[in-house]
Amino acid sequence: MAQKKIGKQTFQFSSVPVITSWASVVGPKEGEGPFGEQYDLVLTDSLAGEKTWEKAEQKMMQYSVELALEKRGLLPKDLDLYLAGDLLNQIICANFTARFLNTPFLGLYGACSTLAQGLCVAGILLEGGFAEKVGVSASSHHNTAERQFRTPTELGDQRPLTAQWTVTGSASFVLERVGTGIMLTHATIGKINDLGVSNAQDLGSAMAPAACDTISTHLEDLGRSEADYDLIVTGDLGFLGSNILTELLTQKGISAEKIYDCGITIYSPEQDTHAGGSGCGCSAVVLAAHLIGCLQARFYQRILFVGTGALLSQISAFQGESIPCIAHAVVLEAGRGDR
Amino acid sequence: MAQKKIGKQTFQFSSVPVITSWASVVGPKEGEGPFGEQYDLVLTDSLAGEKTWEKAEQKMMQYSVELALEKRGLLPKDLDLYLAGDLLNQIICANFTARFLNTPFLGLYGACSTLAQGLCVAGILLEGGFAEKVGVSASSHHNTAERQFRTPTELGDQRPLTAQWTVTGSASFVLERVGTGIMLTHATIGKINDLGVSNAQDLGSAMAPAACDTISTHLEDLGRSEADYDLIVTGDLGFLGSNILTELLTQKGISAEKIYDCGITIYSPEQDTHAGGSGCGCSAVVLAAHLIGCLQARFYQRILFVGTGALLSQISAFQGESIPCIAHAVVLEAGRGDR
Repeated sequence: MAQKKIGKQTFQFSSVPVITSWASVVGPKEGEGPFGEQYDLVLTDSLAGEKTWEKAEQKMMQYSVELALEKRGLLPKDLDLYLAGDLLNQIICANFTARFLNTPFLGLYGACSTLAQGLCVAGILLEGGFAEKVGVSASSHHNTAERQFRTPTELGDQRPLTAQWTVTGSASFVLERVGTGIMLTHATIGKINDLGVSNAQDLGSAMAPAACDTISTHLEDLGRSEADYDLIVTGDLGFLGSNILTELLTQKGISAEKIYDCGITIYSPEQDTHAGGSGCGCSAVVLAAHLIGCLQARFYQRILFVGTGALLSQISAFQGESIPCIAHAVVLEAGRGDR
Repeated sequence: MAQKKIGKQTFQFSSVPVITSWASVVGPKEGEGPFGEQYDLVLTDSLAGEKTWEKAEQKMMQYSVELALEKRGLLPKDLDLYLAGDLLNQIICANFTARFLNTPFLGLYGACSTLAQGLCVAGILLEGGFAEKVGVSASSHHNTAERQFRTPTELGDQRPLTAQWTVTGSASFVLERVGTGIMLTHATIGKINDLGVSNAQDLGSAMAPAACDTISTHLEDLGRSEADYDLIVTGDLGFLGSNILTELLTQKGISAEKIYDCGITIYSPEQDTHAGGSGCGCSAVVLAAHLIGCLQARFYQRILFVGTGALLSQISAFQGESIPCIAHAVVLEAGRGDR
């Protein structure tokens, strides 16, 4: 059996599972952003014809997994396992999407790192020979997150400049043990980092140390440097968090030149989202709509995709707790190799 | 490579990972119940010296994992991975416990099926060669759950007779690829079952079909019958749910004689919890405090442990949704075999 664990926190997928299909569904604001043309579906309103934002978010996740399956000519029953999560209490979007799919299901919670966490677990299942086909989804919705984590949306509270805008969007991915697609070669499972930030309106700053920890551990585990990657993608640190990550990496002697943050690129500056985008959907839709295409076109050969999650709840914040953060990473490479 | 997937939803762990250590921590009411003497630690009050019930619940989870590690002479850093979840929004007990442990962490959400889900994923990691040692925890707390899912505890609302009493308790388990302990031979990952029950005060009835589905699929996948098990343990169906499960199994030609529900056994009838106990902690502490001991003493040789989860949220209930339910199962056997 090939060595599975490399270094402290990294898994090696020698059988090289592949992402064979993917799809993204976003809200109107995201549709007006830089990747507008690249999303599979842009909703014309954030309710998606439903009565509540929560139901709309679930519909987005369902649409995205239906689209990803359809592109690959698969039915839900072809999936051996479905992995999903979202930001809502008790991950209801994932639960109701799993009800629709009627496949074996494992619910995950990693806040905005959920998609990366799902890709890690999918890699484990495929490399370990437990599954042939796995589906992974993540979603977020600006309005469901805003009223759950912060204030009733009707209040129209002014957002501080440190705040990020939760992305309305969902993306789904089909991963297979055998097939043609984007290669998943490694996964690095993160540890909690909590440097004492307790401001729920500045999650990028809270999450930056977790991103730095996972990136540096990953490089050390594999004996690689940042030069081995075309991009080091972070989920949703936004402008503030990315600046902090740059400083932290520099202190460790790692160049931050390759850093690309989905929270920064998902909206254009004119959309004025303050510190950038966030939410499980943020890195998920940027990966599905843009980055995977760049790998497919071999514009990039190898990227490190680092999902970052702030694992707070409204109650933990009210009770004066600081914000525990985590980052999980996967290595994605263009085209299936011949290993 | 030995065959990993058997039938539709079952994984076979041919390398036979083992549960090498376990510990349970419960609240005062649970301490007065039938397993009072068997818990590792019984809190004298449900606040555990903390200012809030949420902090008390987190402390219980931390205590239980510390105890499980200590019994085995391990430190947190000896764990390759930690898997945990709870009922609280954004699984904060798990997140803060993972912060304390400082080990690589995957957050899970499966409501009251979380412990079983964690054991399934631990088995996958160990069998797949991704880890040598994995920690798994789950917790619940009557007061945190009551005020989160139902009504403010100060209201003192009368509970209907269909309601179950959320267990104040946490249990943790150490699983290892090599070693001596209780064998984990198979895992069956559940699908969502939702027959339209929407009463959040009658979760046992909502969950019974999921338990039936997973049990019957498991037996079919392995070509086994209920006679192959000394017990078929369900997590927390309570009195009502267990009656429904009995009917559903009988309809499928499966005898319900071996059914043992942790929600029924955790409290004595005099404690009058109405329909029984529930919560992630329920099946977790009964397994750790009682059932594993029975396997260790070879009073039982092989049990099927089926965690049952009602994947609702307060918002999904308010918005008129029915309750999607899931059940995950693991096979536990006495002593390491020579396979």
